[in-house]
Amino acid sequence: MSGEIVLGDNQYGKAETHVVRVFKRGDTHDIKDMNVSVALAGDFAGAHLTGDNSNVVPTDTQKNTVFAFAADEIGEIEDFALRLARHFVGDFETVHRARVAIEEFAWSGLGEHAFERTGEVRRLTTVSHTAGATSVVSGITGLVVQKTTDSEFHGYIKDRYTTLAETRDRIMATSLAARWRYRDTGVDWARCYEEATRQLKQTFAAHHSLSLQQTLYEMGKAVLVACEEIVEIRLSMPNKHHFTVDLKPFGLENPQEVFYAADRPYGLIEGTVKRDGVPDAPEAW
Amino acid sequence: MSGEIVLGDNQYGKAETHVVRVFKRGDTHDIKDMNVSVALAGDFAGAHLTGDNSNVVPTDTQKNTVFAFAADEIGEIEDFALRLARHFVGDFETVHRARVAIEEFAWSGLGEHAFERTGEVRRLTTVSHTAGATSVVSGITGLVVQKTTDSEFHGYIKDRYTTLAETRDRIMATSLAARWRYRDTGVDWARCYEEATRQLKQTFAAHHSLSLQQTLYEMGKAVLVACEEIVEIRLSMPNKHHFTVDLKPFGLENPQEVFYAADRPYGLIEGTVKRDGVPDAPEAW
Amino acid sequence: MSGEIVLGDNQYGKAETHVVRVFKRGDTHDIKDMNVSVALAGDFAGAHLTGDNSNVVPTDTQKNTVFAFAADEIGEIEDFALRLARHFVGDFETVHRARVAIEEFAWSGLGEHAFERTGEVRRLTTVSHTAGATSVVSGITGLVVQKTTDSEFHGYIKDRYTTLAETRDRIMATSLAARWRYRDTGVDWARCYEEATRQLKQTFAAHHSLSLQQTLYEMGKAVLVACEEIVEIRLSMPNKHHFTVDLKPFGLENPQEVFYAADRPYGLIEGTVKRDGVPDAPEAW
Amino acid sequence: MSGEIVLGDNQYGKAETHVVRVFKRGDTHDIKDMNVSVALAGDFAGAHLTGDNSNVVPTDTQKNTVFAFAADEIGEIEDFALRLARHFVGDFETVHRARVAIEEFAWSGLGEHAFERTGEVRRLTTVSHTAGATSVVSGITGLVVQKTTDSEFHGYIKDRYTTLAETRDRIMATSLAARWRYRDTGVDWARCYEEATRQLKQTFAAHHSLSLQQTLYEMGKAVLVACEEIVEIRLSMPNKHHFTVDLKPFGLENPQEVFYAADRPYGLIEGTVKRDGVPDAPEAW
Repeated sequence: MSGEIVLGDNQYGKAETHVVRVFKRGDTHDIKDMNVSVALAGDFAGAHLTGDNSNVVPTDTQKNTVFAFAADEIGEIEDFALRLARHFVGDFETVHRARVAIEEFAWSGLGEHAFERTGEVRRLTTVSHTAGATSVVSGITGLVVQKTTDSEFHGYIKDRYTTLAETRDRIMATSLAARWRYRDTGVDWARCYEEATRQLKQTFAAHHSLSLQQTLYEMGKAVLVACEEIVEIRLSMPNKHHFTVDLKPFGLENPQEVFYAADRPYGLIEGTVKRDGVPDAPEAW
Repeated sequence: MSGEIVLGDNQYGKAETHVVRVFKRGDTHDIKDMNVSVALAGDFAGAHLTGDNSNVVPTDTQKNTVFAFAADEIGEIEDFALRLARHFVGDFETVHRARVAIEEFAWSGLGEHAFERTGEVRRLTTVSHTAGATSVVSGITGLVVQKTTDSEFHGYIKDRYTTLAETRDRIMATSLAARWRYRDTGVDWARCYEEATRQLKQTFAAHHSLSLQQTLYEMGKAVLVACEEIVEIRLSMPNKHHFTVDLKPFGLENPQEVFYAADRPYGLIEGTVKRDGVPDAPEAW
Repeated sequence: MSGEIVLGDNQYGKAETHVVRVFKRGDTHDIKDMNVSVALAGDFAGAHLTGDNSNVVPTDTQKNTVFAFAADEIGEIEDFALRLARHFVGDFETVHRARVAIEEFAWSGLGEHAFERTGEVRRLTTVSHTAGATSVVSGITGLVVQKTTDSEFHGYIKDRYTTLAETRDRIMATSLAARWRYRDTGVDWARCYEEATRQLKQTFAAHHSLSLQQTLYEMGKAVLVACEEIVEIRLSMPNKHHFTVDLKPFGLENPQEVFYAADRPYGLIEGTVKRDGVPDAPEAW
Repeated sequence: MSGEIVLGDNQYGKAETHVVRVFKRGDTHDIKDMNVSVALAGDFAGAHLTGDNSNVVPTDTQKNTVFAFAADEIGEIEDFALRLARHFVGDFETVHRARVAIEEFAWSGLGEHAFERTGEVRRLTTVSHTAGATSVVSGITGLVVQKTTDSEFHGYIKDRYTTLAETRDRIMATSLAARWRYRDTGVDWARCYEEATRQLKQTFAAHHSLSLQQTLYEMGKAVLVACEEIVEIRLSMPNKHHFTVDLKPFGLENPQEVFYAADRPYGLIEGTVKRDGVPDAPEAW
């Protein structure tokens, strides 16, 4: 009956299981530091409607599974996420879709078995898997970059609320979050991540920008040109405003040298660059 | 040509303009404390492809507009968001869709013109407006609740990775985020927010739970039953685990009295409750 | 020998043991939600100089002790901190000083055994205990308040770097952190906390302010006048700037009605109000 | 009169002025990214007691001063902090002490005038200056390190609350905050920072640890041995617990390979290493 109250889309899982895997070859160790989130969708109407949990894989079990699987080889985070997602869909009839999202922290060596965490940048992946389809979206977040020239902004619409002055030279700064969708699962994950990251940084640095939108598009395009395994990329670029401080009241010049780095509000530029004709996959993200 | 690199979905705007509006009736003041985010979509290919900003309303202008509009009556946050969204779509041919998201902080009076911020709870709205369609999704976030009994969890699937013991009595704690979609814009926003919030709290408190999923469903259903203006509600409920501490090593009993409140990992239960037959509106969220 | 490298002050402990204690009287429950941090000082030179841990009470044991002690009656957080501190100093010869700091989250009832967390305000205590001396410093943090008039600021020093305009009417907003030292341990902790908190709010609201420093002093003084058990109070008050938005470019007036709430930088006003002649106790804080 | 309510210690200032300074030599740029906090103490009783601001340098002026001074050469953050502190004490009779604290974010080049922020590590300084004395405390924070072996913990006190098993091999992980006090102001700040940081990392990596306290002491000692300009160092090292996951229920071994990285509670080890006979300087910190 129309208007009857019904259950819609739903998923559940264990979020943020933080697992560190140490690989030992004699005294030389290596580490993999991952924050793993699992979300399952499937035949869970009973749990919602009557509290019947007979179809439910507890989130505690999901956490245990992450730890148990980490005892084997991990490979890249995409490999690990795929292995987990296939397990949940393959082993449990009631699970129709598994989404496994992993963020990986980077560490550099301080010696044979000591490490320093290198920064705010995290590598990401989200695997979405059903019996019929598997998608892999990977990415990077927390990449804070700025350029101190080669950025202009002018020619925009002026209305009664416009006070912004046009500029031919400004700081452009952002904290990049980029996620890209792979064509399929036959990919050299590590190489693609390195290449995509390299393209993002290089293009940001080298491109002479007339708007943050233009920079975003060029960055996305560079990734698609360099990585044929990638069919679509979504970029989110907050415009971390650096305002030129007016030093005239103090009898000083400021030839674009002293800036106030503001927190809020901030511009937020979001866009997708993709290969024409490739079907969208909204469920992959 | 298939495979050609093209621009996909995109939007841009000014995020988190934090505006405080004071209303003065003699010595008696009232305040509205809002964090406003605007995102515009439209004919912005030029900005991306060639850096041509002639179709662009600068995010700085968007911020100014928020402040200027705040000089008039605000009404409820839904009213304010609607007014802003209609302005951007109505006044600029190049803007085809405006999304205005507002979070409002609650304050209680400490006197005629002094106020205390009341908590972590924020009221939310997101208005998505085009020339042809307007949707309003409102909600609440940061509502931290727990119940110390009337929560069970058993009867779930056991596999080789299951170690969780079944329980007939546990703490259930969550930090609720709920967002609901309104049927149209002819709504008493304040009354609906109060009623929805009341239903969410009351149902959480009163329902005897066999799973967090069941509680989620009952909470969503209660909102739909009470508020006919609401056609769909999405709830996100992290399971903030409270583990019963094993005090036996210290010669002590623990009849569900001493708990360790863990941070991570946490269960994450997400679900939708809706009226049957109402068309989905993915762009509203 | 002068210049020789030596060990100086040191302490160690378990920080942020988050314990929730449920008290059950039939179906009517009550909860105590505490984040407990322990720090011990004493005869720990061996652990530092040679890795000899024979004097060390492991931080894991400290955590266990917090949970075990929570099985008994808790009382107020000051009572619980005193009990823990006395245990560590009394039971272990190598522990000369124990500092136990607790932050307590407030919850209000949603029914007999359901609760809603009420806000960002946390009640604090730090007990510092040695064989010879015990001090109790309690306080409140996260109390966000603002007043929309009755605040002036003028008559200050002007130099070549001054651009601020004097004002006879501004918003004053802060996130108060206040900590006060008790005369001794024979105190009705709950009553004093309620009274101090009441005085802080009322004075903030009622005082006509010529500077944030003046408001701070009046708030501290009000607490000392009302609570004779308190000998000293330290207040930290960030000046959460609310800037009057210039709406003239848009043809609008702004009679102190529309404000931009800034994040950083912020003023930070810190001060102590105390009873004359009472000896300082730097180790208490 | 004893018991009379009086003003105690107080200071005020502008916190977290985030200034970015760009240095341009043709197309080759360099940046200095600093978060500057100023706090002044002096003859401010009038502001507190009667709201008389005639001795007050507004925090807004302090902010302006930071920006104006940034138009000159910056040097190291210690140089900049000294210059600001001397200005406030030297130019204003009512200011008796200035404390200037700066945190600096590190950036690496992505090209001639593009930069990537390198991580969570921030360099710190606090200059405390009066007409008669100047102290400089510098440091580092956010240095997240771990070692996957060469860490033991055993031989500690056991009591009725002890359940921790002794271990000959564990992960040791921390997020280091270290601050050190310089002998005077005639120091090569950049070289000392580099050397101290190098010693901290190397010692953490190379030292075979019997307790976190021992590692802390060795790290501090190494800094003092290498840097004769440093007279005292304070280290704060949270023990970021990595628990070996019990995989036996799943029929798996775990030879120290799979770890759960916990958030809270955590051990917190704090200690000072110093040169014998050097007077303490509590006001420097």
